[in-house]
Amino acid sequence: MSSITRLHSRAELRSWRDSLSDSVTVGFVPTMGALHRGHGTLFHAACEGNEVGLASIFVNPLQFNEGADFKRYPRTADEDCALLERSGVQAVYLPDRIDMYPDGYETRVRSGPGSELYEGYHRPGHFEGMLTAVFKLFQRCRPDRAYFGEKDAQQLWLVQRMAEDLDLDVEVIGCPTVREEDGLAFSSRNAFLAPEQRAVAPIVSRALYACRESFTAGERSVALLERGMHDLLRSEPLASIEYADVVDERTFRPADSDQPGPWRAVAAVRVGDTRLIDNLELGDARSPGMT
Amino acid sequence: MSSITRLHSRAELRSWRDSLSDSVTVGFVPTMGALHRGHGTLFHAACEGNEVGLASIFVNPLQFNEGADFKRYPRTADEDCALLERSGVQAVYLPDRIDMYPDGYETRVRSGPGSELYEGYHRPGHFEGMLTAVFKLFQRCRPDRAYFGEKDAQQLWLVQRMAEDLDLDVEVIGCPTVREEDGLAFSSRNAFLAPEQRAVAPIVSRALYACRESFTAGERSVALLERGMHDLLRSEPLASIEYADVVDERTFRPADSDQPGPWRAVAAVRVGDTRLIDNLELGDARSPGMT
Repeated sequence: MSSITRLHSRAELRSWRDSLSDSVTVGFVPTMGALHRGHGTLFHAACEGNEVGLASIFVNPLQFNEGADFKRYPRTADEDCALLERSGVQAVYLPDRIDMYPDGYETRVRSGPGSELYEGYHRPGHFEGMLTAVFKLFQRCRPDRAYFGEKDAQQLWLVQRMAEDLDLDVEVIGCPTVREEDGLAFSSRNAFLAPEQRAVAPIVSRALYACRESFTAGERSVALLERGMHDLLRSEPLASIEYADVVDERTFRPADSDQPGPWRAVAAVRVGDTRLIDNLELGDARSPGMT
Repeated sequence: MSSITRLHSRAELRSWRDSLSDSVTVGFVPTMGALHRGHGTLFHAACEGNEVGLASIFVNPLQFNEGADFKRYPRTADEDCALLERSGVQAVYLPDRIDMYPDGYETRVRSGPGSELYEGYHRPGHFEGMLTAVFKLFQRCRPDRAYFGEKDAQQLWLVQRMAEDLDLDVEVIGCPTVREEDGLAFSSRNAFLAPEQRAVAPIVSRALYACRESFTAGERSVALLERGMHDLLRSEPLASIEYADVVDERTFRPADSDQPGPWRAVAAVRVGDTRLIDNLELGDARSPGMT
């Protein structure tokens, strides 16, 4: 088994990156570590679609709106590198905070109205921190393609928006959400769930799938689609809804029954102290459902 | 006289830029037009220090916090291009709003605490709009060096900060402020001054030079340096002070007599409806003055 190249600083990354010929394509997966099977599809896509697969592990302090969440975020670097190696990733960039944000650092990348609702509303500053880190990683890693999970749909949308808005020369590709057998989306935060919480966690994906069923059956009222999700989620006493909405995929703003378009159901639910987010594509509301 | 190349869109700019060999150095001066002798030094520096001089003219709506100011900002494209041609600039990028910010545009570049005082405080959103446009122009123009006037000292500081923070491969160079014989700094907004306003406008630079004299004579009390400027400016009834402060050049935060460093006097003064800004390097407060 070939050993993965660990790049601990911007300088090490640069000399590794410069050593690649210009004609070699690089697929990049930025992560915060705590890797799981959901990440696996990203590494697989990056290695399949490019000659070289590159990952990064950086628990980005800027994107944690709660200090406690940053502190308790799982850090499992050795297991992570072993998984990356098994996935065929050739190199991993492991910057520390000072390597990313030296003393005196000030500049941020942020987005507009599409970053203000849902995760942006419930986690103030989160997306600005995420976009700033992703931008810097793109600058330093110079990938041809970068891979993000559809599970974080608003993040994926914002990174694609940033790449287009800022004329970045990188193709941003979304990869399907990977689920446990009972439907729970893989997430690093699932590790925090106590057994009785883990048992109820699939309610989130059940609500999303029920919403899609209703949409496919022809329901085009945003209010009724959302009410269906809320009713199901409220039936579970351990779950507390932050949002369970239908959005227009083009803008990541609330879907409007009078202006149908490609719609997606999105949800964030707290189970105990753990926030679970998930989402599901509904389809194009401009086409009639199968009624 | 060779004719300047006018590039009206991103596509035209790209094909012009791609036609240059990689070994050719490009010096870039982003402007909002309404060019005057102050800009002349920037074009001169760009053409002297590089094989190709490139300018842009874009009255950036994002950086005007007052719609009226945006509307009345002087637009003199033909005179501007003639001046650029005389200055030896080879090409000018003249994007329109949609070329810079297509429909659905969302992403912004902003700075931190160093952007919040002085111009940042008096013109909310101004620096975010400026940094966003400059970033995009850097992406598209791919200069080796970019030139900014020291007259907009906080802007220069923020662009240098951005280039370092975001790992941009461009050297950001400040050029000295150019003044009329009576000391008034050249500015596109000077054109708005009525004759009686124009007559009092040099009070701004007089206050800054008086501050420097006092500093050079050994004054190290920030409060007394600032009081000197305020007293002089207040003596002129047509002038209304927005700020007249001493800043630490390393951080663009208020200078602190207990933590001396490289200091700069900065001022913004309204004469009628017209905002005049100016600044002057004082020197390093860590070294004793000539008392």
